[in-house]
Amino acid sequence: VHDDTLLMQAINNVDEIDKCANLLAKRLREWYELYNPEASKQIDDHEKFIDVLLNKSKEDLQKELKVKFSMGADFSKENLKPIDELAEKIKEIYGLRNREKEYIEGMMKKSFPNIEAVAGAQIGAKLIAQAGGISRLSELPSSTVQLLGAEKALFRHMKTGAKPPKYGIIINHPWITNANKENKGKVARLIANKLSIAAKVDNFSGEFIGDKLKKEIEEKLKRV
Amino acid sequence: VHDDTLLMQAINNVDEIDKCANLLAKRLREWYELYNPEASKQIDDHEKFIDVLLNKSKEDLQKELKVKFSMGADFSKENLKPIDELAEKIKEIYGLRNREKEYIEGMMKKSFPNIEAVAGAQIGAKLIAQAGGISRLSELPSSTVQLLGAEKALFRHMKTGAKPPKYGIIINHPWITNANKENKGKVARLIANKLSIAAKVDNFSGEFIGDKLKKEIEEKLKRV
Repeated sequence: VHDDTLLMQAINNVDEIDKCANLLAKRLREWYELYNPEASKQIDDHEKFIDVLLNKSKEDLQKELKVKFSMGADFSKENLKPIDELAEKIKEIYGLRNREKEYIEGMMKKSFPNIEAVAGAQIGAKLIAQAGGISRLSELPSSTVQLLGAEKALFRHMKTGAKPPKYGIIINHPWITNANKENKGKVARLIANKLSIAAKVDNFSGEFIGDKLKKEIEEKLKRV
Repeated sequence: VHDDTLLMQAINNVDEIDKCANLLAKRLREWYELYNPEASKQIDDHEKFIDVLLNKSKEDLQKELKVKFSMGADFSKENLKPIDELAEKIKEIYGLRNREKEYIEGMMKKSFPNIEAVAGAQIGAKLIAQAGGISRLSELPSSTVQLLGAEKALFRHMKTGAKPPKYGIIINHPWITNANKENKGKVARLIANKLSIAAKVDNFSGEFIGDKLKKEIEEKLKRV
Protein backbone atom coordinates (compact mmCIF):
# COMPACT_ATOMS: atom_id res chain seq x y z
CA VAL A 1 0.00 0.00 0.00
CA HIS A 2 1.52 3.26 -1.11
CA ASP A 3 1.11 6.63 0.52
CA ASP A 4 -1.13 7.92 -2.27
CA THR A 5 -3.63 5.12 -1.59
CA LEU A 6 -3.88 6.18 2.05
CA LEU A 7 -4.08 9.80 1.01
CA MET A 8 -7.04 9.06 -1.24
CA GLN A 9 -8.92 7.43 1.62
CA ALA A 10 -8.19 10.35 3.91
CA ILE A 11 -9.14 13.12 1.51
CA ASN A 12 -12.39 11.38 0.50
CA ASN A 13 -13.08 10.91 4.18
CA VAL A 14 -12.68 14.64 4.79
CA ASP A 15 -15.30 15.33 2.11
CA GLU A 16 -17.70 12.85 3.65
CA ILE A 17 -17.18 14.20 7.16
CA ASP A 18 -17.99 17.65 5.83
CA LYS A 19 -21.15 16.37 4.21
CA CYS A 20 -22.25 14.73 7.47
CA ALA A 21 -21.44 17.73 9.60
CA ASN A 22 -23.44 19.99 7.27
CA LEU A 23 -26.43 17.67 7.22
CA LEU A 24 -26.48 17.48 11.01
CA ALA A 25 -25.82 21.20 11.45
CA LYS A 26 -28.83 22.04 9.28
CA ARG A 27 -31.03 19.85 11.46
CA LEU A 28 -29.51 21.40 14.58
CA ARG A 29 -30.44 24.87 13.35
CA GLU A 30 -34.00 23.90 12.47
CA TRP A 31 -34.42 22.36 15.91
CA TYR A 32 -32.74 25.18 17.84
CA GLU A 33 -34.72 27.79 15.93
CA LEU A 34 -37.86 26.63 17.70
CA TYR A 35 -36.14 27.82 20.87
CA ASN A 36 -34.05 30.79 19.82
CA PRO A 37 -34.58 31.67 16.14
CA GLU A 38 -32.93 35.10 16.20
CA ALA A 39 -29.49 33.82 17.21
CA SER A 40 -29.40 31.13 14.57
CA LYS A 41 -30.38 33.53 11.83
CA GLN A 42 -27.69 36.05 12.69
CA ILE A 43 -24.78 33.60 12.63
CA ASP A 44 -24.23 32.08 9.21
CA ASP A 45 -21.16 29.96 9.86
CA HIS A 46 -22.08 26.52 11.22
CA GLU A 47 -18.97 26.11 13.38
CA LYS A 48 -19.31 29.53 14.94
CA PHE A 49 -23.01 28.99 15.51
CA ILE A 50 -22.34 25.74 17.34
CA ASP A 51 -19.69 27.33 19.54
CA VAL A 52 -22.06 30.11 20.48
CA LEU A 53 -24.91 27.69 21.16
CA LEU A 54 -22.73 25.61 23.46
CA ASN A 55 -21.25 28.49 25.40
CA LYS A 56 -23.99 31.06 25.80
CA SER A 57 -27.47 30.94 27.25
CA LYS A 58 -30.51 32.09 25.31
CA GLU A 59 -30.83 35.11 27.58
CA ASP A 60 -27.23 36.23 27.10
CA LEU A 61 -27.50 35.79 23.34
CA GLN A 62 -30.67 37.81 23.09
CA LYS A 63 -29.15 40.60 25.13
CA GLU A 64 -26.09 40.62 22.89
CA LEU A 65 -28.11 40.61 19.70
CA LYS A 66 -30.52 43.17 21.15
CA VAL A 67 -33.55 41.02 20.56
CA LYS A 68 -36.47 42.63 22.33
CA PHE A 69 -39.20 40.18 21.55
CA SER A 70 -38.20 36.63 20.72
CA MET A 71 -40.30 34.37 18.52
CA GLY A 72 -38.80 31.32 20.26
CA ALA A 73 -40.57 29.10 22.75
CA ASP A 74 -39.50 28.14 26.26
CA PHE A 75 -37.88 24.73 26.46
CA SER A 76 -37.60 22.46 29.47
CA LYS A 77 -34.13 21.20 30.36
CA GLU A 78 -35.16 17.76 29.20
CA ASN A 79 -36.04 19.04 25.73
CA LEU A 80 -32.83 21.05 25.43
CA LYS A 81 -30.62 18.10 26.23
CA PRO A 82 -30.84 16.29 22.87
CA ILE A 83 -30.15 19.57 21.06
CA ASP A 84 -27.06 20.21 23.17
CA GLU A 85 -25.84 16.68 22.68
CA LEU A 86 -26.25 16.99 18.93
CA ALA A 87 -24.32 20.27 18.92
CA GLU A 88 -21.55 18.75 21.01
CA LYS A 89 -21.22 15.82 18.62
CA ILE A 90 -21.13 18.00 15.52
CA LYS A 91 -18.37 20.02 17.14
CA GLU A 92 -16.41 16.83 17.68
CA ILE A 93 -17.02 15.79 14.08
CA TYR A 94 -15.49 19.08 12.95
CA GLY A 95 -12.57 18.31 15.26
CA LEU A 96 -12.12 14.91 13.61
CA ARG A 97 -12.13 16.57 10.20
CA ASN A 98 -9.40 18.95 11.29
CA ARG A 99 -7.23 16.12 12.58
CA GLU A 100 -7.68 14.20 9.32
CA LYS A 101 -6.66 17.33 7.47
CA GLU A 102 -3.50 17.57 9.58
CA TYR A 103 -2.74 13.95 8.77
CA ILE A 104 -3.12 14.75 5.06
CA GLU A 105 -0.86 17.74 5.42
CA GLY A 106 1.84 15.70 7.12
CA MET A 107 1.68 13.02 4.46
CA MET A 108 1.74 15.51 1.59
CA LYS A 109 4.79 17.25 3.05
CA LYS A 110 6.56 13.95 3.56
CA SER A 111 5.68 12.10 0.36
CA PHE A 112 4.61 14.71 -2.19
CA PRO A 113 6.50 17.82 -1.14
CA ASN A 114 6.61 19.43 -4.58
CA ILE A 115 2.87 19.17 -5.19
CA GLU A 116 2.33 20.44 -1.66
CA ALA A 117 4.53 23.45 -2.29
CA VAL A 118 2.72 24.47 -5.47
CA ALA A 119 -0.90 23.58 -4.65
CA GLY A 120 -1.09 23.25 -0.87
CA ALA A 121 -1.87 20.02 0.95
CA GLN A 122 -5.65 19.79 0.53
CA ILE A 123 -5.83 20.75 -3.15
CA GLY A 124 -2.83 18.56 -3.87
CA ALA A 125 -4.42 15.57 -2.17
CA LYS A 126 -7.66 16.13 -4.07
CA LEU A 127 -5.77 16.21 -7.36
CA ILE A 128 -4.02 12.93 -6.55
CA ALA A 129 -7.34 11.34 -5.57
CA GLN A 130 -9.15 12.63 -8.66
CA ALA A 131 -6.41 11.36 -10.97
CA GLY A 132 -6.46 7.97 -9.23
CA GLY A 133 -2.98 8.02 -7.75
CA ILE A 134 0.32 9.83 -8.04
CA SER A 135 1.59 7.85 -11.00
CA ARG A 136 -1.54 8.62 -13.04
CA LEU A 137 -1.38 12.26 -12.05
CA SER A 138 2.24 12.42 -13.17
CA GLU A 139 1.28 11.14 -16.62
CA LEU A 140 -1.38 13.75 -17.26
CA PRO A 141 -0.64 16.75 -19.48
CA SER A 142 -0.90 20.04 -17.67
CA SER A 143 -4.07 20.97 -19.56
CA THR A 144 -5.78 17.95 -18.01
CA VAL A 145 -4.41 18.77 -14.55
CA GLN A 146 -5.91 22.22 -14.95
CA LEU A 147 -9.37 20.74 -15.54
CA LEU A 148 -9.25 17.80 -13.10
CA GLY A 149 -12.53 17.77 -11.20
CA ALA A 150 -14.35 19.78 -13.88
CA GLU A 151 -15.23 16.74 -16.00
CA LYS A 152 -18.95 17.47 -15.88
CA ALA A 153 -18.51 20.98 -17.21
CA LEU A 154 -16.05 19.74 -19.81
CA PHE A 155 -18.45 17.15 -21.21
CA ARG A 156 -21.28 19.66 -21.13
CA HIS A 157 -19.06 21.91 -23.22
CA MET A 158 -18.30 19.13 -25.70
CA LYS A 159 -21.92 18.04 -25.97
CA THR A 160 -23.82 21.30 -25.97
CA GLY A 161 -21.20 23.86 -26.85
CA ALA A 162 -21.56 25.61 -23.49
CA LYS A 163 -18.56 27.60 -22.25
CA PRO A 164 -15.54 25.39 -21.55
CA PRO A 165 -14.41 25.25 -17.91
CA LYS A 166 -11.19 27.08 -17.06
CA TYR A 167 -10.27 25.15 -13.92
CA GLY A 168 -11.26 22.18 -11.83
CA ILE A 169 -10.09 21.43 -8.31
CA ILE A 170 -7.45 24.17 -8.42
CA ILE A 171 -10.20 26.81 -8.48
CA ASN A 172 -9.75 27.13 -4.70
CA HIS A 173 -6.05 27.90 -4.97
CA PRO A 174 -5.47 31.30 -3.33
CA TRP A 175 -3.59 32.60 -6.39
CA ILE A 176 -6.69 31.95 -8.51
CA THR A 177 -9.25 33.22 -6.02
CA ASN A 178 -7.19 36.40 -5.60
CA ALA A 179 -6.73 36.99 -9.34
CA ASN A 180 -8.91 39.36 -11.35
CA LYS A 181 -11.72 37.69 -13.22
CA GLU A 182 -10.10 38.09 -16.63
CA ASN A 183 -6.79 36.66 -15.37
CA LYS A 184 -8.09 33.61 -13.55
CA GLY A 185 -7.74 31.31 -16.59
CA LYS A 186 -4.20 32.45 -17.23
CA VAL A 187 -3.18 31.92 -13.61
CA ALA A 188 -4.80 28.48 -13.61
CA ARG A 189 -2.76 27.49 -16.67
CA LEU A 190 0.39 28.72 -14.99
CA ILE A 191 -0.26 26.72 -11.82
CA ALA A 192 -1.27 23.58 -13.73
CA ASN A 193 1.94 23.83 -15.72
CA LYS A 194 4.14 23.76 -12.65
CA LEU A 195 1.89 21.21 -10.96
CA SER A 196 2.43 18.68 -13.71
CA ILE A 197 6.18 19.12 -13.29
CA ALA A 198 5.84 18.79 -9.51
CA ALA A 199 3.81 15.58 -9.89
CA LYS A 200 6.45 14.03 -12.11
CA VAL A 201 9.23 14.85 -9.67
CA ASP A 202 7.22 13.57 -6.69
CA ASN A 203 6.33 10.37 -8.49
CA PHE A 204 9.95 9.55 -9.18
CA SER A 205 10.93 10.65 -5.67
CA GLY A 206 13.15 13.38 -7.01
CA GLU A 207 14.63 16.24 -5.10
CA PHE A 208 12.65 19.15 -3.67
CA ILE A 209 12.17 21.86 -6.29
CA GLY A 210 8.89 23.16 -4.87
CA ASP A 211 10.41 26.46 -3.79
CA LYS A 212 11.83 27.04 -7.24
CA LEU A 213 8.52 26.22 -8.95
CA LYS A 214 6.66 28.49 -6.58
CA LYS A 215 9.06 31.35 -7.21
CA GLU A 216 8.72 30.93 -10.97
CA ILE A 217 4.96 31.23 -10.72
CA GLU A 218 5.22 34.27 -8.47
CA GLU A 219 7.57 35.95 -10.94
CA LYS A 220 5.14 35.39 -13.77
CA LEU A 221 2.18 36.47 -11.66
CA LYS A 222 3.79 39.90 -11.33
CA ARG A 223 3.68 40.30 -15.09
CA VAL A 224 0.08 39.03 -15.50
CA VAL B 1 -44.09 24.54 20.51
CA HIS B 2 -45.92 21.27 21.03
CA ASP B 3 -44.39 17.93 21.80
CA ASP B 4 -45.09 16.57 18.32
CA THR B 5 -42.99 19.37 16.79
CA LEU B 6 -40.02 18.37 18.93
CA LEU B 7 -40.67 14.74 18.17
CA MET B 8 -40.51 15.42 14.44
CA GLN B 9 -37.12 17.08 14.78
CA ALA B 10 -35.80 14.20 16.86
CA ILE B 11 -37.03 11.39 14.61
CA ASN B 12 -35.75 13.09 11.46
CA ASN B 13 -32.48 13.62 13.26
CA VAL B 14 -32.24 9.90 14.02
CA ASP B 15 -32.63 9.14 10.31
CA GLU B 16 -29.92 11.63 9.40
CA ILE B 17 -27.55 10.36 12.07
CA ASP B 18 -28.03 6.87 10.64
CA LYS B 19 -27.26 8.09 7.16
CA CYS B 20 -24.06 9.79 8.37
CA ALA B 21 -22.92 6.81 10.40
CA ASN B 22 -23.41 4.52 7.41
CA LEU B 23 -21.56 6.81 5.05
CA LEU B 24 -18.61 7.07 7.41
CA ALA B 25 -18.67 3.36 8.26
CA LYS B 26 -18.41 2.46 4.57
CA ARG B 27 -15.35 4.67 4.24
CA LEU B 28 -13.91 3.15 7.43
CA ARG B 29 -14.24 -0.33 5.97
CA GLU B 30 -12.66 0.60 2.65
CA TRP B 31 -9.75 2.19 4.50
CA TYR B 32 -9.33 -0.58 7.07
CA GLU B 33 -9.52 -3.25 4.37
CA LEU B 34 -6.16 -2.08 3.05
CA TYR B 35 -4.81 -3.20 6.41
CA ASN B 36 -6.93 -6.19 7.39
CA PRO B 37 -9.42 -7.12 4.66
CA GLU B 38 -10.42 -10.53 6.02
CA ALA B 39 -11.82 -9.22 9.30
CA SER B 40 -13.94 -6.55 7.64
CA LYS B 41 -15.42 -9.01 5.17
CA GLN B 42 -16.46 -11.49 7.82
CA ILE B 43 -18.37 -9.03 10.01
CA ASP B 44 -21.36 -7.55 8.23
CA ASP B 45 -22.83 -5.40 10.97
CA HIS B 46 -21.20 -1.95 11.08
CA GLU B 47 -21.51 -1.48 14.84
CA LYS B 48 -20.10 -4.88 15.64
CA PHE B 49 -17.29 -4.36 13.13
CA ILE B 50 -16.33 -1.08 14.76
CA ASP B 51 -16.32 -2.62 18.24
CA VAL B 52 -14.05 -5.41 17.04
CA LEU B 53 -11.74 -3.00 15.24
CA LEU B 54 -11.35 -0.87 18.35
CA ASN B 55 -10.80 -3.72 20.78
CA LYS B 56 -8.74 -6.30 18.97
CA SER B 57 -5.40 -6.20 17.21
CA LYS B 58 -4.95 -7.39 13.65
CA GLU B 59 -2.98 -10.40 14.88
CA ASP B 60 -5.65 -11.48 17.38
CA LEU B 61 -8.36 -11.10 14.77
CA GLN B 62 -6.53 -13.14 12.18
CA LYS B 63 -5.92 -15.92 14.68
CA GLU B 64 -9.60 -15.93 15.64
CA LEU B 65 -10.78 -15.95 12.04
CA LYS B 66 -8.12 -18.53 11.12
CA VAL B 67 -6.63 -16.39 8.39
CA LYS B 68 -3.40 -18.04 7.28
CA PHE B 69 -2.28 -15.61 4.65
CA SER B 70 -3.55 -12.06 4.87
CA MET B 71 -3.92 -9.84 1.81
CA GLY B 72 -3.55 -6.75 4.02
CA ALA B 73 -0.52 -4.50 4.21
CA ASP B 74 1.48 -3.48 7.26
CA PHE B 75 0.59 -0.06 8.59
CA SER B 76 2.69 2.25 10.70
CA LYS B 77 1.16 3.55 13.93
CA GLU B 78 0.91 6.96 12.35
CA ASN B 79 -1.18 5.63 9.48
CA LEU B 80 -3.45 3.63 11.77
CA LYS B 81 -4.27 6.60 13.95
CA PRO B 82 -6.71 8.38 11.61
CA ILE B 83 -8.53 5.07 11.04
CA ASP B 84 -8.88 4.49 14.77
CA GLU B 85 -10.06 8.03 15.35
CA LEU B 86 -12.68 7.67 12.64
CA ALA B 87 -13.90 4.39 14.17
CA GLU B 88 -14.06 5.97 17.62
CA LYS B 89 -16.12 8.86 16.31
CA ILE B 90 -18.56 6.63 14.42
CA LYS B 91 -19.07 4.65 17.60
CA GLU B 92 -19.92 7.88 19.41
CA ILE B 93 -22.31 8.86 16.63
CA TYR B 94 -24.14 5.57 17.12
CA GLY B 95 -24.24 6.39 20.83
CA LEU B 96 -25.81 9.76 20.08
CA ARG B 97 -28.41 8.05 17.91
CA ASN B 98 -29.31 5.71 20.75
CA ARG B 99 -29.71 8.57 23.20
CA GLU B 100 -31.95 10.44 20.74
CA LYS B 101 -34.00 7.28 20.39
CA GLU B 102 -34.39 7.10 24.17
CA TYR B 103 -35.54 10.71 24.19
CA ILE B 104 -38.13 9.85 21.54
CA GLU B 105 -39.29 6.88 23.55
CA GLY B 106 -39.71 8.97 26.71
CA MET B 107 -41.67 11.60 24.85
CA MET B 108 -43.91 9.08 23.09
CA LYS B 109 -44.72 7.38 26.39
CA LYS B 110 -45.48 10.69 28.04
CA SER B 111 -47.39 12.49 25.30
CA PHE B 112 -48.65 9.84 22.89
CA PRO B 113 -49.02 6.74 25.07
CA ASN B 114 -51.74 5.10 22.98
CA ILE B 115 -49.82 5.30 19.70
CA GLU B 116 -46.73 4.11 21.55
CA ALA B 117 -48.61 1.08 22.90
CA VAL B 118 -49.90 0.02 19.48
CA ALA B 119 -46.96 0.89 17.20
CA GLY B 120 -43.93 1.27 19.46
CA ALA B 121 -42.05 4.54 19.98
CA GLN B 122 -39.98 4.72 16.80
CA ILE B 123 -42.69 3.71 14.32
CA GLY B 124 -45.19 5.91 16.14
CA ALA B 125 -42.87 8.92 15.97
CA LYS B 126 -42.26 8.31 12.26
CA LEU B 127 -46.00 8.19 11.61
CA ILE B 128 -46.51 11.49 13.43
CA ALA B 129 -43.65 13.07 11.47
CA GLN B 130 -44.87 11.73 8.13
CA ALA B 131 -48.41 12.98 8.74
CA GLY B 132 -47.06 16.39 9.76
CA GLY B 133 -48.13 16.40 13.39
CA ILE B 134 -50.43 14.61 15.78
CA SER B 135 -53.56 16.56 14.87
CA ARG B 136 -53.14 15.75 11.18
CA LEU B 137 -52.45 12.11 11.97
CA SER B 138 -55.61 11.96 14.05
CA GLU B 139 -57.66 13.18 11.09
CA LEU B 140 -56.45 10.54 8.66
CA PRO B 141 -58.61 7.52 7.85
CA SER B 142 -57.03 4.25 8.87
CA SER B 143 -56.44 3.26 5.21
CA THR B 144 -54.18 6.30 4.85
CA VAL B 145 -52.39 5.55 8.12
CA GLN B 146 -51.71 2.08 6.76
CA LEU B 147 -49.96 3.53 3.69
CA LEU B 148 -48.19 6.51 5.32
CA GLY B 149 -44.64 6.53 3.98
CA ALA B 150 -45.53 4.47 0.89
CA GLU B 151 -46.62 7.46 -1.16
CA LYS B 152 -44.18 6.73 -3.96
CA ALA B 153 -45.46 3.20 -4.42
CA LEU B 154 -49.03 4.42 -4.18
CA PHE B 155 -48.59 6.98 -6.95
CA ARG B 156 -46.72 4.45 -9.05
CA HIS B 157 -49.75 2.19 -8.65
CA MET B 158 -52.15 4.95 -9.66
CA LYS B 159 -50.07 6.00 -12.65
CA THR B 160 -48.82 2.73 -14.08
CA GLY B 161 -51.17 0.15 -12.60
CA ALA B 162 -48.34 -1.53 -10.68
CA LYS B 163 -49.28 -3.48 -7.56
CA PRO B 164 -50.66 -1.23 -4.83
CA PRO B 165 -48.57 -1.04 -1.63
CA LYS B 166 -49.96 -2.84 1.41
CA TYR B 167 -48.15 -0.87 4.09
CA GLY B 168 -45.90 2.13 4.62
CA ILE B 169 -43.94 2.93 7.74
CA ILE B 170 -45.70 0.21 9.75
CA ILE B 171 -43.98 -2.45 7.63
CA ASN B 172 -41.35 -2.72 10.38
CA HIS B 173 -43.90 -3.46 13.07
CA PRO B 174 -42.98 -6.84 14.60
CA TRP B 175 -46.52 -8.16 14.12
CA ILE B 176 -46.20 -7.57 10.39
CA THR B 177 -42.63 -8.83 10.00
CA ASN B 178 -43.62 -12.00 11.90
CA ALA B 179 -46.79 -12.63 9.88
CA ASN B 180 -46.93 -15.04 6.95
CA LYS B 181 -46.61 -13.42 3.58
CA GLU B 182 -50.27 -13.85 2.66
CA ASN B 183 -51.40 -12.39 5.99
CA LYS B 184 -49.20 -9.30 6.11
CA GLY B 185 -51.77 -7.07 4.42
CA LYS B 186 -54.51 -8.19 6.75
CA VAL B 187 -52.36 -7.59 9.84
CA ALA B 188 -51.36 -4.17 8.54
CA ARG B 189 -55.03 -3.21 8.14
CA LEU B 190 -55.71 -4.38 11.67
CA ILE B 191 -52.87 -2.34 13.16
CA ALA B 192 -53.72 0.75 11.12
CA ASN B 193 -57.30 0.51 12.33
CA LYS B 194 -56.34 0.62 15.98
CA LEU B 195 -53.63 3.19 15.29
CA SER B 196 -56.09 5.68 13.92
CA ILE B 197 -58.16 5.27 17.08
CA ALA B 198 -55.03 5.65 19.21
CA ALA B 199 -54.06 8.85 17.38
CA LYS B 200 -57.47 10.38 17.97
CA VAL B 201 -57.36 9.59 21.69
CA ASP B 202 -53.79 10.91 22.03
CA ASN B 203 -54.64 14.08 20.14
CA PHE B 204 -57.50 14.92 22.47
CA SER B 205 -55.42 13.86 25.49
CA GLY B 206 -57.83 11.12 26.35
CA GLU B 207 -57.29 8.32 28.79
CA PHE B 208 -54.90 5.43 28.20
CA ILE B 209 -56.59 2.69 26.19
CA GLY B 210 -53.41 1.37 24.57
CA ASP B 211 -53.52 -1.90 26.50
CA LYS B 212 -57.08 -2.51 25.40
CA LEU B 213 -56.28 -1.75 21.75
CA LYS B 214 -53.26 -4.01 21.86
CA LYS B 215 -55.26 -6.87 23.35
CA GLU B 216 -57.93 -6.49 20.68
CA ILE B 217 -55.34 -6.82 17.94
CA GLU B 218 -53.76 -9.82 19.61
CA GLU B 219 -57.17 -11.51 19.86
CA LYS B 220 -57.78 -11.00 16.17
CA LEU B 221 -54.27 -12.09 15.24
CA LYS B 222 -55.01 -15.48 16.74
CA ARG B 223 -57.86 -15.93 14.27
CA VAL B 224 -55.88 -14.70 11.22
